[in-house]
Amino acid sequence: MLEQLKEQVFQANIDLVNHGLVVLTRGTASGIDRESGLVVIKPDGIPHQKIKPKDMVVLNLYGQVEEGNLQPSGDAPTHLVLYRQFKNIGGVVHTYSEWATCWAQAGRGIPPLGTAHTEYFYGEIPCTRKMTRNEMESNFEHETGKVIVERFRELNPDQIPGVLVNNHGPFTWGADVNNAVQNAIALEKVAQMAFRTLIINPDAEMGAALLNKHFFKKNKNYGQK
Amino acid sequence: MLEQLKEQVFQANIDLVNHGLVVLTRGTASGIDRESGLVVIKPDGIPHQKIKPKDMVVLNLYGQVEEGNLQPSGDAPTHLVLYRQFKNIGGVVHTYSEWATCWAQAGRGIPPLGTAHTEYFYGEIPCTRKMTRNEMESNFEHETGKVIVERFRELNPDQIPGVLVNNHGPFTWGADVNNAVQNAIALEKVAQMAFRTLIINPDAEMGAALLNKHFFKKNKNYGQK
Amino acid sequence: MLEQLKEQVFQANIDLVNHGLVVLTRGTASGIDRESGLVVIKPDGIPHQKIKPKDMVVLNLYGQVEEGNLQPSGDAPTHLVLYRQFKNIGGVVHTYSEWATCWAQAGRGIPPLGTAHTEYFYGEIPCTRKMTRNEMESNFEHETGKVIVERFRELNPDQIPGVLVNNHGPFTWGADVNNAVQNAIALEKVAQMAFRTLIINPDAEMGAALLNKHFFKKNKNYGQK
Amino acid sequence: MLEQLKEQVFQANIDLVNHGLVVLTRGTASGIDRESGLVVIKPDGIPHQKIKPKDMVVLNLYGQVEEGNLQPSGDAPTHLVLYRQFKNIGGVVHTYSEWATCWAQAGRGIPPLGTAHTEYFYGEIPCTRKMTRNEMESNFEHETGKVIVERFRELNPDQIPGVLVNNHGPFTWGADVNNAVQNAIALEKVAQMAFRTLIINPDAEMGAALLNKHFFKKNKNYGQK
Repeated sequence: MLEQLKEQVFQANIDLVNHGLVVLTRGTASGIDRESGLVVIKPDGIPHQKIKPKDMVVLNLYGQVEEGNLQPSGDAPTHLVLYRQFKNIGGVVHTYSEWATCWAQAGRGIPPLGTAHTEYFYGEIPCTRKMTRNEMESNFEHETGKVIVERFRELNPDQIPGVLVNNHGPFTWGADVNNAVQNAIALEKVAQMAFRTLIINPDAEMGAALLNKHFFKKNKNYGQK
Repeated sequence: MLEQLKEQVFQANIDLVNHGLVVLTRGTASGIDRESGLVVIKPDGIPHQKIKPKDMVVLNLYGQVEEGNLQPSGDAPTHLVLYRQFKNIGGVVHTYSEWATCWAQAGRGIPPLGTAHTEYFYGEIPCTRKMTRNEMESNFEHETGKVIVERFRELNPDQIPGVLVNNHGPFTWGADVNNAVQNAIALEKVAQMAFRTLIINPDAEMGAALLNKHFFKKNKNYGQK
Repeated sequence: MLEQLKEQVFQANIDLVNHGLVVLTRGTASGIDRESGLVVIKPDGIPHQKIKPKDMVVLNLYGQVEEGNLQPSGDAPTHLVLYRQFKNIGGVVHTYSEWATCWAQAGRGIPPLGTAHTEYFYGEIPCTRKMTRNEMESNFEHETGKVIVERFRELNPDQIPGVLVNNHGPFTWGADVNNAVQNAIALEKVAQMAFRTLIINPDAEMGAALLNKHFFKKNKNYGQK
Repeated sequence: MLEQLKEQVFQANIDLVNHGLVVLTRGTASGIDRESGLVVIKPDGIPHQKIKPKDMVVLNLYGQVEEGNLQPSGDAPTHLVLYRQFKNIGGVVHTYSEWATCWAQAGRGIPPLGTAHTEYFYGEIPCTRKMTRNEMESNFEHETGKVIVERFRELNPDQIPGVLVNNHGPFTWGADVNNAVQNAIALEKVAQMAFRTLIINPDAEMGAALLNKHFFKKNKNYGQK
């Protein structure tokens, strides 16, 4: 079942490799079929080079395997929390991409410094608080999802489709799994350029007007009709 | 019409990709036929991988489409201001290239620090002032062109064929569209090396004599006759 | 003899090149057959591009050539000290990889800053003390091994499978030669990301709980059964 | 004449491209036949992609073209000064390679920080003083050679086969043109790693004992007999 979604999720996982986002073998993309409430995700511990579309694992929103003989990615519990709480998202990506992970390790959100940022993220890409010992020692991946949701209590995940998990790495999401991959690519580039920008000028910032203008303009003014 | 210029502009847009200057899909090259006053530019929202020479859009200097069924690049208004104000230029390029964009986001001009810089740019590559809320909320791309022209009030665009737009990214130009691409490549390299140079020695600078010598020498002493 | 190990050690040396870890021609991988106590290592001074499995040199643990007409790598004495002292390791790698070598040159250990680090290294990747003039002027490679072992007097080499030799470069090891290569790849990425993380936030650190959790979790919870 | 040397010099110029050292089209390798006192150098202004062995220009040590219809590289006067003053060298390379050029622009020599450095350069890779206005306004390339020679008045060019020309870029040399290319590759890597090392630890340095040990060891202890 969900053969088309499996194909998309498979391709998204391959795209992560092709865009250089898979570091130290870490890189998981998933997608959801909102109608059935079923999630398709990469199997665990199998190198990207060896996966096939039919290896994708089908889960329900509570983590039970509905189809497939392989174990789902160990990151699945985080993805599931996000699908349950962020009602509009259709895909999730997690990597150790080499620039975004540094901001996550530093425990710092990435401030908006230019239109390259605001075409994808409406404001700072936030970083979660550090997790407590209790949270880590129960179900780490599940608690990771919860701490992300907590961080978005006053933020709109549809306008800021990504987060940095403290001392861990980035997650992105989007309308579908391909969009989540595009946001992971954008996050990586934004993370790289913010790093360099703040070295050139530690006081760099952009005004709210440009932030508003550019984010809301993007989907309105560009492209063919 | 302008089939040869369309071919050149097409190739220039592909060259931007081949030189790694297209970041987050942003990268537009255009060229002008000064005799007819017509501008050829990449269509909007179509990935570089899919464009063909015949997709290039022909505009007059006031933005009206003279040929082509596709929308011109959303950046066209900026290009048009530059063509109207900088009378000698034949091509314009805009990207989010990964080093020059950082200087733009930092709001800092790139100082000349060595002969690699002065072979292409006679002095600092300037950064525009931040735009006002009013400028942003009217026609952002048109105002972007105006703020560039304002910044060059006392500078010679033929000697400094590039600029950084504050919180946005770089524009370069040249005698023709290929020359504008070459200047975009040079700007990127100069931006990278200035970043590193000023980390090694924050007080680095070059004397006016070497700046003069090398810039004016370039087109005189080198190459085959 | 040891044809299978020669093939593995050969492949590991090629893998170092393919992963970009061979800088300035430096890059040596070796493996040990614990039953016979024989070590297989790359020959000295022959470019990686030209070696074949049959060129691998077989040594005993005291450095005598047991098979092969070529000289063993000049780094062999260091490898042999590690095999003699770290009883569980099956492979060793030494490179001048471009990020880890910088930490070695800086004389600084790499602190654990995120789960990317702790999936491979349980705590700081230590740096040795500087060697004395006497140590350098006797047998440099042998003394290099001894100073590594000294540094691990209160550390567990099975939990921290790598080290930075002061003013020199990194060594990694593992259960077999392929595992040593994987740890060299991980060390390089960790070194790169720690460099950037501490620029973003000089006070970055991770708590002991996350360190424990993630290191011990890795081999338990992930992968297919 | 000198067909074999032309072939070597041609190949060396191509190697500069293949190793990523040609930045902004700048990259010239030359070689000398000490018996005849003739120098073979890349022609000027022709892209590396288009040169052929037969295009190499033959000059005498005073700059007169002995063979070839093309103009010699504009950098030839610098090469000739080095060949006249550094009696043992057989090849010279000049580039704008992206790390060494930053140290040159910063006006800073590259200190020895590890064995990767001292395997190629016995001590700091020096930077020349800034040139005077007079020097620049007479024959820039010739004066560039003279300022390099001045910098080596108390240094041994056979032990330190490279230099940074202030506000300009690196030159390297060697026993032959291929060796000069190898030293250009090494200089680039050393420049990159010193940059990063001094960010990690601004007080990094290496002792004289290790410097001596490693430099003089290199050609004695390694390789096959």
